[in-house]
Order: sequence, then structure tokens, then C-alpha cells
Amino acid sequence: MMRSIKVLRVGERLFRDDRTLTHLCLVSRALGAESIFLGDAEKDVVGTLEEVNRTWGGDFKAVLGVPWRKVIKDSKVEGRKVIHLTMYGMPLQDMVAELRGLEKLLLVVGGPKVPGKVYHESDYNIAVTSQPHSEIAALAVALHEIQSGEELKRAFEKSRLRILPSPRGKRVVET
Amino acid sequence: MMRSIKVLRVGERLFRDDRTLTHLCLVSRALGAESIFLGDAEKDVVGTLEEVNRTWGGDFKAVLGVPWRKVIKDSKVEGRKVIHLTMYGMPLQDMVAELRGLEKLLLVVGGPKVPGKVYHESDYNIAVTSQPHSEIAALAVALHEIQSGEELKRAFEKSRLRILPSPRGKRVVET
Repeated sequence: MMRSIKVLRVGERLFRDDRTLTHLCLVSRALGAESIFLGDAEKDVVGTLEEVNRTWGGDFKAVLGVPWRKVIKDSKVEGRKVIHLTMYGMPLQDMVAELRGLEKLLLVVGGPKVPGKVYHESDYNIAVTSQPHSEIAALAVALHEIQSGEELKRAFEKSRLRILPSPRGKRVVET
Repeated sequence: MMRSIKVLRVGERLFRDDRTLTHLCLVSRALGAESIFLGDAEKDVVGTLEEVNRTWGGDFKAVLGVPWRKVIKDSKVEGRKVIHLTMYGMPLQDMVAELRGLEKLLLVVGGPKVPGKVYHESDYNIAVTSQPHSEIAALAVALHEIQSGEELKRAFEKSRLRILPSPRGKRVVET
């Protein structure tokens, strides 16, 4: 099965938090998602991603400025299941067999200020532990589990640099 | 086997990045580590963790101010294996069977500015993909894999609140 995974970042931000946003984008890219929807325009993040794609390959995309309601609505129209990651949801380990059977997924992550409607408009509310931690970590473990670890083996096409795994130090080659 | 996992955060910080630090602490706690060593004193982070323990249980600890070289040295003396997470390391999926056999582990995470000595003083350099992403995500996936997902089922003792997993909305009980 060719699985398609997109990510949506929801939530009002009380202060600029580019670092968390950048982590969410890079994790989505590295762990097998094809794009991320970011509510408001963050041109710096888009620049960072373009540079990462140029250097390390692939064509991961950040999509800016589409309201989250529209992202969810459009996703449902195209048959995409909406999976909201929240500590209040059902345990990932109990639901992952079902999630692995889905062909098109939208993973929704937010900070503490996720609107209640997100819980109700999602097809699944899924918890990576019922403990407070990090939407970056929750996204990583969910992507990893849903793809059964296959995402770790993926090669990124058309990269400028490639790492040769090494027990010590750094080995990088131009491709 | 009773496994003991501690986390060490290394790396000079070019600017204050409390958010990333907090994520690293909370992920360590939620996903089964018993403590985290932070290089420099971050009293705010310690306060946050104490509050999280009081509310959600367990006795996870942040240890401040021990130089990273001493943390690594002391860890080795007590028979703890040092596992540095880096995109330049050996693939997690190729090494995880060996890592699962270790009883005492120190997981080392850093930002981009990790000193070269860390690579050489570690017993393992391990990559969660050879792509740039997030030390928070790498730590989460490594903790998850090394513990074979068992950490997701863990209960935290002496909590004030507990979440009842729910397909919709938020259900929290006092304990």
C-alpha cells in the first residue's frame, strides 16, 4: 500500500515559537510525511525547508495560510482520515493496528490551546501516553508506529549531500 | 530485566531555548527515563518538572550543573552504556536489538553544536534517520524502540490527576 501522510499544525500561539515549528516540519519530513499545513505565514520556516530539501533531498512541502477548518474539511472530501494527537485520546498502542490500515491520513498536532472543535471533527483522537510531553515527540512516535518503522529506511531523492552511517564521527559525501 | 535509562543534554546554547529544553525533559519523563542531566542551571525547568510530577505522578528528576564530561565518566564507572543520538551515527533499526540488551543506559542528545569528543567517548553513536530533524523526536523514537513500546503502558504513581482515555474530548479524574 502506498500510504499518504500529511500533517496539520493547529493552535493559537501566544508567542512566536519558530523553533518548535521548525522541529515539527523537519520531523514530518524526516519521518515520511509529504507536507505540513501551518496556520499562519512563517516565511523563515519555508526557507529553511527549501534549503534542507536542496541539501538532503526529497520534496517535502510546507503549506501556509490555509485555515485549519478548511484543511480538515478538504482532507475529508479527499477521503483522508483525520487523526488528532492529544494526551486525552485513546492509547496509540491500542489503535495502531487500525491506523496502519488507513491509506490517506492527516495527523493533527497542536499546543495546549487546541480548539475543542478539533477533538470533535477528527476521526481519531490518539494519545502517545496520557502524560504531558511534546507535540514533536508525539508526532515522531505516531509517524514511526503507523509506518511500522519503515520510514527509517527511506532514501531521499536528489540530495546534494548524503551521510554514510558511522560508529564514530561524521562521514558525509556529495552525491 | 529492570532497565535504567538516564538522559544527558549536551551542547553550548547560542541563545536561551527553554522550550526545547522543557520538551526534552518532559519526553524523557513520559517515555520512561528516570532523570535528565542539564548542563547549566535552569531553575524554571526544574520548577515545571516538580509541578508536572505533583500533578501527573512519578519522581522524574532534572540534575543541574554537572559538566557533561563528568556525567559520561561517572556513568561509565557505574557500568552504564553511553548512547549518543546523532544523524551521523549507525541506523537505530540496525542496532536496536543490541541496545535492548543493555541494562543501564545514558542517552546523550545535543543540538548542532555537540563537541567532537562526545562522538568518541560514547559507546554508540546512533541515528534516527540520517536526515536533519529534532533531538526531541530522536530521543522519543529511541526511547520507544529501546523499550519496545512498553513505556507507553507505564502508570505514574502518586498522581493528583489521571486521564481516562477518550475517543472525543477530555476526561480527567482526581486520584
